[in-house]
Amino acid sequence: MSAGRSKRGLGLLVLGVLMFSPMIKAQEQGPVYLMPVPSNVQIGSGRLLVDSKFSVGLTGYGEPRLDRAIGRFLHQLSRQTAIPLSGKPSAPAKAVLVIHTDHASKEIQELGEDESYILEIQESGAKLSAPTPLGALHGLQTFLQLVEVSPDGFAAPAVTINDKPRFAWRGLMIDSARHFVPLEVLKRNIDGLEAVKMNVFHWHLSENQGFRVESKKFPKLHEMGSDGLYYSQEEIRDLIEYARDRGIRVVPEFDVPGHTTAWFVGYPELASGPGPYEIERRWGVFDPAFDPSNEKTYKFLDQFFGEMAKLFPDHFFHVGGDEVNGKQWDASPKIQEFIKAHDLKNNQGLQSYFNKRLEPIVSKHGKSMVGWDEVLDPTLPKDIVIQSWRGPDSLAAAAKQGFRGILSNGYYLDLGWSAARHYAVDPLSGAGANLAPEEKARILGGESCMWAEYINPENIDSRIWPRNAAIAERLWSPQEVTDAASMPARMEALANRLEWLGLTHKAYHRQMLQRIAGPSTPEEFAALTTLASVVEPVKDYTREETATAEPTSATPLNRLVDAVPLESATARHFGELVGKFVAASCHDSAAEARLRAQLAAWRDNDAKLQPLAQRSFLVREVSPSSQDLSTLGTVGLAALDFVARGQRAPEDWKAQQLAIVQPIQKPKGQLLLMPTAAVQKLVEAASAGGTCSSPN
Amino acid sequence: MSAGRSKRGLGLLVLGVLMFSPMIKAQEQGPVYLMPVPSNVQIGSGRLLVDSKFSVGLTGYGEPRLDRAIGRFLHQLSRQTAIPLSGKPSAPAKAVLVIHTDHASKEIQELGEDESYILEIQESGAKLSAPTPLGALHGLQTFLQLVEVSPDGFAAPAVTINDKPRFAWRGLMIDSARHFVPLEVLKRNIDGLEAVKMNVFHWHLSENQGFRVESKKFPKLHEMGSDGLYYSQEEIRDLIEYARDRGIRVVPEFDVPGHTTAWFVGYPELASGPGPYEIERRWGVFDPAFDPSNEKTYKFLDQFFGEMAKLFPDHFFHVGGDEVNGKQWDASPKIQEFIKAHDLKNNQGLQSYFNKRLEPIVSKHGKSMVGWDEVLDPTLPKDIVIQSWRGPDSLAAAAKQGFRGILSNGYYLDLGWSAARHYAVDPLSGAGANLAPEEKARILGGESCMWAEYINPENIDSRIWPRNAAIAERLWSPQEVTDAASMPARMEALANRLEWLGLTHKAYHRQMLQRIAGPSTPEEFAALTTLASVVEPVKDYTREETATAEPTSATPLNRLVDAVPLESATARHFGELVGKFVAASCHDSAAEARLRAQLAAWRDNDAKLQPLAQRSFLVREVSPSSQDLSTLGTVGLAALDFVARGQRAPEDWKAQQLAIVQPIQKPKGQLLLMPTAAVQKLVEAASAGGTCSSPN
Repeated sequence: MSAGRSKRGLGLLVLGVLMFSPMIKAQEQGPVYLMPVPSNVQIGSGRLLVDSKFSVGLTGYGEPRLDRAIGRFLHQLSRQTAIPLSGKPSAPAKAVLVIHTDHASKEIQELGEDESYILEIQESGAKLSAPTPLGALHGLQTFLQLVEVSPDGFAAPAVTINDKPRFAWRGLMIDSARHFVPLEVLKRNIDGLEAVKMNVFHWHLSENQGFRVESKKFPKLHEMGSDGLYYSQEEIRDLIEYARDRGIRVVPEFDVPGHTTAWFVGYPELASGPGPYEIERRWGVFDPAFDPSNEKTYKFLDQFFGEMAKLFPDHFFHVGGDEVNGKQWDASPKIQEFIKAHDLKNNQGLQSYFNKRLEPIVSKHGKSMVGWDEVLDPTLPKDIVIQSWRGPDSLAAAAKQGFRGILSNGYYLDLGWSAARHYAVDPLSGAGANLAPEEKARILGGESCMWAEYINPENIDSRIWPRNAAIAERLWSPQEVTDAASMPARMEALANRLEWLGLTHKAYHRQMLQRIAGPSTPEEFAALTTLASVVEPVKDYTREETATAEPTSATPLNRLVDAVPLESATARHFGELVGKFVAASCHDSAAEARLRAQLAAWRDNDAKLQPLAQRSFLVREVSPSSQDLSTLGTVGLAALDFVARGQRAPEDWKAQQLAIVQPIQKPKGQLLLMPTAAVQKLVEAASAGGTCSSPN
Repeated sequence: MSAGRSKRGLGLLVLGVLMFSPMIKAQEQGPVYLMPVPSNVQIGSGRLLVDSKFSVGLTGYGEPRLDRAIGRFLHQLSRQTAIPLSGKPSAPAKAVLVIHTDHASKEIQELGEDESYILEIQESGAKLSAPTPLGALHGLQTFLQLVEVSPDGFAAPAVTINDKPRFAWRGLMIDSARHFVPLEVLKRNIDGLEAVKMNVFHWHLSENQGFRVESKKFPKLHEMGSDGLYYSQEEIRDLIEYARDRGIRVVPEFDVPGHTTAWFVGYPELASGPGPYEIERRWGVFDPAFDPSNEKTYKFLDQFFGEMAKLFPDHFFHVGGDEVNGKQWDASPKIQEFIKAHDLKNNQGLQSYFNKRLEPIVSKHGKSMVGWDEVLDPTLPKDIVIQSWRGPDSLAAAAKQGFRGILSNGYYLDLGWSAARHYAVDPLSGAGANLAPEEKARILGGESCMWAEYINPENIDSRIWPRNAAIAERLWSPQEVTDAASMPARMEALANRLEWLGLTHKAYHRQMLQRIAGPSTPEEFAALTTLASVVEPVKDYTREETATAEPTSATPLNRLVDAVPLESATARHFGELVGKFVAASCHDSAAEARLRAQLAAWRDNDAKLQPLAQRSFLVREVSPSSQDLSTLGTVGLAALDFVARGQRAPEDWKAQQLAIVQPIQKPKGQLLLMPTAAVQKLVEAASAGGTCSSPN
């Protein structure tokens, strides 16, 4: 975390008019909210108005996918503006936006294809040029981000953009195994990937808790391992086609030899321990694993991977390989005997053996194998790709050994990190920064990961978006684009645009709060909203640790911890305001008034929430946080009172207040009360006396 | 309008615990939010908890539709609570909710089938009994409305409900011709109809602006008359099946002889005037009409209605018949000659002739003809049904002549009336109240109407919901259920539930405001939200009158007038608060403080909105309303200052203030500023002096 963060200062300002070009007229163009930031932007003069006469034409290479892209583009433009637009391409000579594509991209999208484009917008019209349809798709998304309401109507600024990605592998992994994710939810998230120019959807399809793919060769996999919640092969083909239309590869993952309980419900004979097996309902790492000493395992995987290799056309095939706890292997005399007989030393040696048997199978079916860190073994062919959950150093070490890799450490969306924290993680940081050029070239990019213990179709979008856009920018934009200060505004603009694609990352919040509240007065509901605006779910893996009952796949995700965004904008703004106030030696009466109003509202909020807590168990659960918020309000106001009187708060007062505030830092109901640190800062500033110097 | 309103005082209190039964324990059960209110409710003791063990079983008559209904019910229950529930029926002996159905309903749902049900909920389980699946469907919706968050978890109160509808025809008409309404939008609205126990979807399918049905006999109808926006026959069959699953009949309307421009694009030879014709883009009443003097007209309609009669299985077939302006008939010597030759006197006589020719055609294809008021002719067979846009008196007159009828006057959702105003309209009011029982029986019910000049897929839900629920209650609940005071709370609870069906009546609002604002600070956006919360679109047909440019089907519906709800809850609450304050002789300091805070926020709002008005043409357009709101704040605060000082405001001050406020009553940007009257009331109260007696 901190390694990436320290690089922030190197960044250039990427927002708006100032950095792009010295020739801009700031009075004419507003800021430009692009995400990811393109490689090169030159702002011109004037705007292209977008009205009902807007049209798109196509020259050069053509294919049905480009026609569909235009239809989708016009539909989305129409949604953004509510201007009725026909979804059909127009004659290029008359079109407002002309797209020129040089030639086809690969029939099956490949890693490292040319994705560049040039977009030129003038008052009179626009031109988008790209070597391949992939670049054209990206350019259309850039155009959509440029269209904004203006004083004269909807318009895009005159601009010349020359853009291409930094990394060739820019992905999102969705775990649709722990909780099943319906196809339409995946589709709207793939729309989101297209919007931020990501080009890989990594589909985590099997787990202890579910096997999600129809297998015609081994039907007991989905019939017995999925509770009926699986994707048919027809649906999968449909999704792959959908993704291809958006310039996105689909990489399937079938995690072996561990994470495989659901496989063994139908095929217990392949496991290392005796059956029978049931679909796992709990979360965590479990014992069941394939038996590497059993030749049937390889025969089965050969046949099954063969079937899947045909179903999923992408060249890469992910076999997981992570988190084998080895308990079943330890418990099996036969397996231990096998380890001895083959001189494999231990379970790790056994897993290496398994991977070495697996790789030729994957290869035989025409694929390159991808696996998590654990699969790395210097004796494996260099064709494999390592996906690192361990970090950039691990990735760099693999690159030094000649392996290609993608980074996911630092990009786990389920850990509740801030977008800024994800944003600071660079695949070429740490040891990666010192690699030789040919080694650096082996770092293909990265993938954000959405693990699914605490998501369902209702809140998944809010756990992915908008933070995933920060990771997308990290992987697309030039390495020097690292200005975390401008990023939130661009991400917020993008978050609003994503809603027009049908993503529900914002809409879900009020609906979930209404469920938590039940029928309520506007004042009661406002009190719940106020509390919800300043709490965040606990971070990293502390949710399990702080659970009062063991969570399972049957646990309803209807609590406030499930309903609040992973980043509190209110708390961030409050913290910034406190920071400025203290930095200005507390001599800013406007800021003081705003702080007072906010703190008073928090102080009084719990009383307003109490009637709801009487009626709803879901509100009662968060009453302690509500009381804490009230306390923060009281403490913060007392601190401001000292400041207002020009008094230095006594040391014993300070100690007393900090003692009050300290327990509030601990999570309650699996929620963190985010303004706590800022209130602490006010207390410390007040006790620093009339000068009120910042304690930091 | 006023006729219905005056009946409000007759109502009983229908909300919550007090009215249903004298035996309720208010400390145990919260209020029950049911809409429509059932015929009979008896609240019992305790609650049935709904948790992950909840299950549903079926006894008695069974059919696949009931299984699907259970699946849908469990899915919806799961959405309301976020409790994962399997969508399958359980063994009745073990089920928490047991549904017993006596026998089948009709294969093709008929008018007047038994829709009654009895729902008994106890702590230990629940039973739903109904003669037919139709009653079971309604009972499941009642159950869903009873499940609410409680202190112990999600639960339904112990209750016995004995329920049946007052009217047999309870419908919603959607005009999918002026603006095309995609199938999924219709489906989610049909889900909404099921939730409020409406049983007719009246599908207005043809207009001057579009012909929306695929005809295999006359393909030029949809090919040339729809801009490609039409429903295929397969889609229509799918929608009818979807509606039948929900106990809803689908009545198609093909409006003839007027409203038919789109028909004539492909078949100009059937019109009364010379062609060629183009799809109409404007709104209003237009000249094109079928030629009643041309035998080809009847031959064509016979064949076309024959095709449609097979496609739409319902027994009723709507032929429109409204608003023929007669200009093409006047202009045609041949038609005028025909009128003379057949002694038809005038155009009205000609239309009667047309209808008399039409009725046997409809009848021949096995259907009963439905038409708007204009089709009424004493010489037509009594089998026809009149849909009245003219009003209850017109309907009563028809009933006296022996015709059946349904009321739509007073239920036009596009006119922007308040829910309370619709709620007060009763099909048996006015002359209907004095009909003999057998005449009353001819009043079958009513239909709300969603005409489509100013709707699109984005805002249509907000124009239908939640107000349509008030009309649904009027048509379902006993006549004496007329307590408009309790209705808003029940409607608000329902509005929240409807969101779980996918209806977007609430979600659209913020998204549209964000489009209007463009990228903005939280404070700027809050200012826009504040303005949006106190304005309503102009009512009735004044939108056309106040338009600056002629609106057409190409006009973007992206303005504030399109984005705000049709009822301002904020203004209603403010008006109530002012009413109470003045009624209490202005001696209520808590109320005064709340009024002050509200008025100060309004006074200061325009300054916060100004930066947005500089950047967005859609905000600039509503700047006058924003300035007016600021003025209202200033005037209201000045009035409160007099009150606070115990002073009587001078007469010239009063006159001056009223002169300031008066122009604010007029719409600007097609928006009404709703708190204006309440501020006027404050001014008048202040000038009434220390006693501050209410001027009303």
